[in-house]
Amino acid sequence: MLNLCGADWTPRFVDYFQRRDAHPAYREINEMGEAPVLEFGRERLSQSGVILDYLAAKFGRFGWRNDEERREILRWTLFDNHKFTSYIATLRFLMSLQKTGETPVTEFLRGRALNSLGIVDKHLAAQRFLIGDSLTIADVSLCGYLYWPDEFGVSWKDYPNIGRWLDTIAALPGWVHPYKLMPGHPLPEKKG
Amino acid sequence: MLNLCGADWTPRFVDYFQRRDAHPAYREINEMGEAPVLEFGRERLSQSGVILDYLAAKFGRFGWRNDEERREILRWTLFDNHKFTSYIATLRFLMSLQKTGETPVTEFLRGRALNSLGIVDKHLAAQRFLIGDSLTIADVSLCGYLYWPDEFGVSWKDYPNIGRWLDTIAALPGWVHPYKLMPGHPLPEKKG
Repeated sequence: MLNLCGADWTPRFVDYFQRRDAHPAYREINEMGEAPVLEFGRERLSQSGVILDYLAAKFGRFGWRNDEERREILRWTLFDNHKFTSYIATLRFLMSLQKTGETPVTEFLRGRALNSLGIVDKHLAAQRFLIGDSLTIADVSLCGYLYWPDEFGVSWKDYPNIGRWLDTIAALPGWVHPYKLMPGHPLPEKKG
Repeated sequence: MLNLCGADWTPRFVDYFQRRDAHPAYREINEMGEAPVLEFGRERLSQSGVILDYLAAKFGRFGWRNDEERREILRWTLFDNHKFTSYIATLRFLMSLQKTGETPVTEFLRGRALNSLGIVDKHLAAQRFLIGDSLTIADVSLCGYLYWPDEFGVSWKDYPNIGRWLDTIAALPGWVHPYKLMPGHPLPEKKG
């Protein structure tokens, strides 16, 4: 989102493997213990959906024109947090970072992740972006973890509308692959 | 929320055990396959956070005064969908409805649910409601599944600020225990 808006920004590393997210000093920054946190002057925001909402207003990009559109963006952002990135990101964490191998938990998460991918793929069959013909912060929210499908064991051949949608987003001015935005992330280093 | 606002409304039963949520006819009502759905005249809304947002505007109750408050409500509603009710409701479903017994999946969900309960309990130590001194739709969102703690194996003795907060909400005019609002729910019948 920051890159798509042409923002001037710097990433800061949070070490989940050292459980820095549970450290009292980090809980002072975010009581929920999560990343990302956006710092801008005196403002400090957490929850990616809140950060996207704030940036949409700040840059006047990818937001809504009325309350109906705002709620449609909210509908997909809540689905993302509840059923989509929530399961996909956790499945990826266990598979590719913790490397637990196949367990009842990965099986449980995969069942839910694939169901949610099917819902989004079906929705995108009829339209270019999640809400009509233009990118909104809902698209930015849902696409975040999808540029490394091998890390949670999915191929876009099985979800062709999602694959096409991701290509459309990746072709937008300013887009950069997420790993390039996260120096210090363990996976690209291991791959390299 | 509907009761707290004094709305005139009627519940409609969705049979999750018969997987009515996955039926094509239900997917016509909600492509995400979830309950609740709010129908009002020609409007049809899904995602509880969207429904709460809509009702706050409709009734002029429990909403926000400015964008900062709106984002603070959004922050807790997203946390609820991602890490709080999401894990608590799923844990309860497995424990009390599917009756799977203890499994690696219930253990996984319980770890995450208890962590999130600790975050909310700590937050509520300093204030009456999630956002300051007045009830907002964020409180309504998070409290939904908490009036049956035995069904996911928690006691409010371990989270006293949550217990106090739930009592405060239950004392508000119009509040009714969730089971009384859901005729046909399997659990109270089994208990009776």
